[in-house]
Amino acid sequence: MAIHVLRLGHRSSRDKRVTTHLILAARALGASSATYDGERDPSLEESVRDVVTDWGGSFSLEYTDSWRRSIAAWRDERGGKVVHLTMYGIPLQDVISSIRDDPSDKLVVVGGAKVPGEAYSLADWNVSVTQQPHSEVSALAVFLHELLEGRELGRVFEGARLRVLPQEREKRVEERSPESKI
Amino acid sequence: MAIHVLRLGHRSSRDKRVTTHLILAARALGASSATYDGERDPSLEESVRDVVTDWGGSFSLEYTDSWRRSIAAWRDERGGKVVHLTMYGIPLQDVISSIRDDPSDKLVVVGGAKVPGEAYSLADWNVSVTQQPHSEVSALAVFLHELLEGRELGRVFEGARLRVLPQEREKRVEERSPESKI
Repeated sequence: MAIHVLRLGHRSSRDKRVTTHLILAARALGASSATYDGERDPSLEESVRDVVTDWGGSFSLEYTDSWRRSIAAWRDERGGKVVHLTMYGIPLQDVISSIRDDPSDKLVVVGGAKVPGEAYSLADWNVSVTQQPHSEVSALAVFLHELLEGRELGRVFEGARLRVLPQEREKRVEERSPESKI
Repeated sequence: MAIHVLRLGHRSSRDKRVTTHLILAARALGASSATYDGERDPSLEESVRDVVTDWGGSFSLEYTDSWRRSIAAWRDERGGKVVHLTMYGIPLQDVISSIRDDPSDKLVVVGGAKVPGEAYSLADWNVSVTQQPHSEVSALAVFLHELLEGRELGRVFEGARLRVLPQEREKRVEERSPESKI
C-alpha cells in the first residue's frame, strides 16, 4: 500500500514552517510522496529536496493548482482511496482497521486554514485523531504510525549522505561521500 | 504517571505557530501541563487558554526563564524523570517499554532551534522518533501515543463548552452554555 499526502491551502508566508514540518513528517513516517495546494512556494520545495538529498530515499513533493483534480486522478487513474484527517471525523481507533485492511493505495488529505465542505464528501473516510484541536502535523503522525503499525519507525532511507548513529547522550552523524566514509 | 512537556527556545515571531501546534498536541494527546522557555509570548499563552476554555480539561501552560531550573525542580522536588526527544537518541521502539514501566512522572523535553548539549546529559532518556529530520510536533505525538498506548485517544475533557459529535461526512459541534444546550 503506497501512501501519498495531499496538503490543502498552503500560504507561503504564514504556513511555511508548519507545512515544512508536515511534509517532512510525511516522509519520515512512511509516505512516499506529497502534493500541496494553495500558494506555490519554491523555498518549501527546496527545503524538502535538500532533506531528501542529505537523508536519502526517493520522497518527492509536487505542487497542484487543483486539489479536486488531484483527488479525482488518485481515484480514477490509480484506483486509490482517500482518507481526510479532520477533528470532526470518525475516531481513528474506530476506523483504522478498516483502512488498514483495504489494500488500495491511500491519499491522506490534510487541511490548511479552511477546508471546503467538498473535501468531506470526496473522502472515503473522514478520520479524527482525538476530537480536540491540535495540529495537522500531530494528526498525520499518529495516523501514519497507526496505519503502518509502527513498521515505519525502522525504515531505511537508501542513498543517504548523512546517517544518525543513535547514542544515549550525544549526537553522532556519519557522513558518506562517494570516495570516503568519515 | 503525569506527563509534562517542556518546550525549549521559543522565538515569538518565528516559532509562534509551531509552538502553538506543539502545545496543543501535548494537551490533546495526554500531557497535563507544559512549560516553555525562550522568549515570553503572551499571544501563545492566550491561544492555549482559549482552547482550554472552549474544549475543556485543566491543561496549563507556564513560562520559565530557566529550563535548567525547571528540569532540576522536576527531578529534585517532584522525583520525576526526564525524556528528551531528539533525532540523535535511542530509537523509540527500543526504549519505550522501559519508559512505560517506570512509574515516575515524566518531563518530556522538546527542542527548538538549537538544543544545548547539556540537555542530552540532563535527560534520563534521549529518544528518537525515527533517525530522520521531521518535526518536534510529530515526534511528540508519536512518543505520547506510544507512551500511553493509544488510551489518550479516548480521553474526555471535562467542562468543555464545545464538543465534537463525530460524523462520517460533516462537521457537528455541540455547544453548551450554563442555561441551555444547542
